[in-house]
Amino acid sequence: MKPIKIGIIGFGTVGTAVVRLLQENGWLLRERLGLELQVKKIADLDISSDRGLGLPPGTLTSSAAEVIQDPEVQVVVELIGGLRPAKDFILQALRAGKHVVTANKALLAEEGQELFQEAQQRGLALGFEASVAGGGPIIRALREGLLANRIKAVYGILNGTTNYILTKMSSEGVEYEEALREAQRLGYAEADPTLDVQGIDSAHKLTLLASLAFGIPLSFQEVYTEGISHLSPLDIAFASELGMKIKLLAVAKLTEGQVELRVHPTMLPQKQPISQVDGVLNAIYVEGDAMPQCLLQGPGAGGSPTASAVVSDLASIAHTIHTGGRPARAISFSPTAPSIRPIQEVESLYYFRFSALDRPGVLSKIAGVLGAKNISIWTVIQKGRKVGGAVPLVLLTHKAKEQNVRQALKEIDALPVVTKKSTLIRVEGPEE
Amino acid sequence: MKPIKIGIIGFGTVGTAVVRLLQENGWLLRERLGLELQVKKIADLDISSDRGLGLPPGTLTSSAAEVIQDPEVQVVVELIGGLRPAKDFILQALRAGKHVVTANKALLAEEGQELFQEAQQRGLALGFEASVAGGGPIIRALREGLLANRIKAVYGILNGTTNYILTKMSSEGVEYEEALREAQRLGYAEADPTLDVQGIDSAHKLTLLASLAFGIPLSFQEVYTEGISHLSPLDIAFASELGMKIKLLAVAKLTEGQVELRVHPTMLPQKQPISQVDGVLNAIYVEGDAMPQCLLQGPGAGGSPTASAVVSDLASIAHTIHTGGRPARAISFSPTAPSIRPIQEVESLYYFRFSALDRPGVLSKIAGVLGAKNISIWTVIQKGRKVGGAVPLVLLTHKAKEQNVRQALKEIDALPVVTKKSTLIRVEGPEE
Repeated sequence: MKPIKIGIIGFGTVGTAVVRLLQENGWLLRERLGLELQVKKIADLDISSDRGLGLPPGTLTSSAAEVIQDPEVQVVVELIGGLRPAKDFILQALRAGKHVVTANKALLAEEGQELFQEAQQRGLALGFEASVAGGGPIIRALREGLLANRIKAVYGILNGTTNYILTKMSSEGVEYEEALREAQRLGYAEADPTLDVQGIDSAHKLTLLASLAFGIPLSFQEVYTEGISHLSPLDIAFASELGMKIKLLAVAKLTEGQVELRVHPTMLPQKQPISQVDGVLNAIYVEGDAMPQCLLQGPGAGGSPTASAVVSDLASIAHTIHTGGRPARAISFSPTAPSIRPIQEVESLYYFRFSALDRPGVLSKIAGVLGAKNISIWTVIQKGRKVGGAVPLVLLTHKAKEQNVRQALKEIDALPVVTKKSTLIRVEGPEE
Repeated sequence: MKPIKIGIIGFGTVGTAVVRLLQENGWLLRERLGLELQVKKIADLDISSDRGLGLPPGTLTSSAAEVIQDPEVQVVVELIGGLRPAKDFILQALRAGKHVVTANKALLAEEGQELFQEAQQRGLALGFEASVAGGGPIIRALREGLLANRIKAVYGILNGTTNYILTKMSSEGVEYEEALREAQRLGYAEADPTLDVQGIDSAHKLTLLASLAFGIPLSFQEVYTEGISHLSPLDIAFASELGMKIKLLAVAKLTEGQVELRVHPTMLPQKQPISQVDGVLNAIYVEGDAMPQCLLQGPGAGGSPTASAVVSDLASIAHTIHTGGRPARAISFSPTAPSIRPIQEVESLYYFRFSALDRPGVLSKIAGVLGAKNISIWTVIQKGRKVGGAVPLVLLTHKAKEQNVRQALKEIDALPVVTKKSTLIRVEGPEE
């Protein structure tokens, strides 16, 4: 049995976890697939830190080119993240005829079209199981397990950092900033949390899932993306009063032949299973025509879970090489793929919180604007509690169109009795 | 592109759903994998019913041999269920060099060793994704997605019929018989519900999952199996009082180097996610060393979900044939697999309900017997409500060994103050 030789670019948390997993559990691959994976070369800028792995001398190099150009290396694993030079390394590896495995959702979502095309033209694998849901095999589920389904929707909680922050805000009533600091202290959030808290990481992952599910081109730029940093404990308290929770939901959904692509805070009934996905967990629902619902849930990040997914890709590729087959297309882009539905056209239920002066006739004014835009009110909460001189007025609407909602809020925010920009949170799932 | 030709044996609910799915969604396979599946022959005893599928003349036959021996058929799908003649058909198909796909968990769990061996020796695929969790890709998740993990445990709700009955008993307080009748009326339970309600179907599925997870031989005979028909609304009410729910749990768990294999009603804290899996849903947890927890959930049965899984297997096999590769082993049995832990050695928390005469000293007598067997009591519920002249006495224990529990119950049931056989339900998950 000739070992399949791999090269790794990026020897941080995930790279180290991949090598350790191969060292500790490589026997499983031998036993289960009759094949051996051997790490031939690893490139990193830091080649002096001791990662405690006892690598053979000559394995480490500071030159990515040395990994890519090594004639023995058959699969290149890209784990440096970011757009550049990661993209160049992957393109170089593919052009050198190597299969590639990556966990780089940002790169694939933003500039992956060229990479998938290059891999496809050369009959090479481009494995990215590790890019969504950590070690949970969601890519495999969509590509293989649910292959025979016309997918109606893929949605879920795709980012553990924001889910941790929202869980903390909800269970302890703390402000966003405090929950974020705690997440940073625990290592769940980065020093610069922008990608996570602005919903960009979720949008990257949703982009990949949507292309797998619907065959659409990678459409990161067209994902409507809204983060969680504007959420206040007040909205979370109102949600709770309404029997709901707020989650950062990523949604790709077929509506009238178009695909909705959106990431935003969403109010969901507390009783819905997805509301109970707390802490750093991820959860993804897939709705197909033959398999009406399939849920995959697990920790969405971390060195070991991500390494588990990287090695599963490596094993599939190695098996294919070993048995003389050809890898299937990484993503099959459809010539008849549906178009993206503009966010203005999307319909939803809405939660509004208005800060209004405590005067007679305010509700009627606001309701008048909404009615004129075809937005009908389902529930009202108006209470005496003053916040900064004004009273919060909370409304839940029936289904309404986003563009009408935006116009209505613009008009409402211009009313003299409204003292602050209004809050809008989309609502999914309650029985109207 | 030459179509891959398949033959189907068994044209009932699932067989019909498979053909319909290939007709309706076959374009997905063409588009995504560049391959075509063509149903060449279908065998069934009933070749006269109109299934509304508009099959070409000559497709239907009453002879399974005609399907198996057709030189053009490359993959045989067995969907008749039962042990015989299904086993003969699968063996004949493998010996004729055909790949096989089946949904037959009973056959694979009870006599699959020979079938897997035959497939393995001939380098043929034996696909069985449809045998567990309907259309949920749990087999693929264990074989591929979580391949790099040493699995610590696989457990869950593997049978929709019993989960429906327990949900109904729990939400409406009805007796087992009434809930069963309702399940039968809705088509969730068969006229003879034995396989489901006695836990045998769950044990079949657990057998397959355990071999995938731990590499152990198929060990159906060694699965400790207990059904739900003895459960009373009284126990469900006490569970609720204790903040718990009763589910039919199937567990394969590594303990001290041995594998526990058991299917039995289990009390679980209401807050645990698995307690919220209600109705006909299935849910399977996998705990690995690299991926600490992965949950897969969805409808566990039904024509379309099962067909979704059958076609996913067909697509994988067709891709392998099409690209000149070889299928991986269906199950990789390990030469160093752990042994099965005898049920007597298994440790658990326990719920006991004793029917005792309402006399002073009864609790002390019962507690004395338990204490002598090293079973320590955690919680006691004793209430005035008489049931048939006796008072129910409910105890929760700390962790105890099954053999001690059985001996203790035998002694307790022999006490003159105890009026009926005691009830025992295993408990998982609460903080002691």
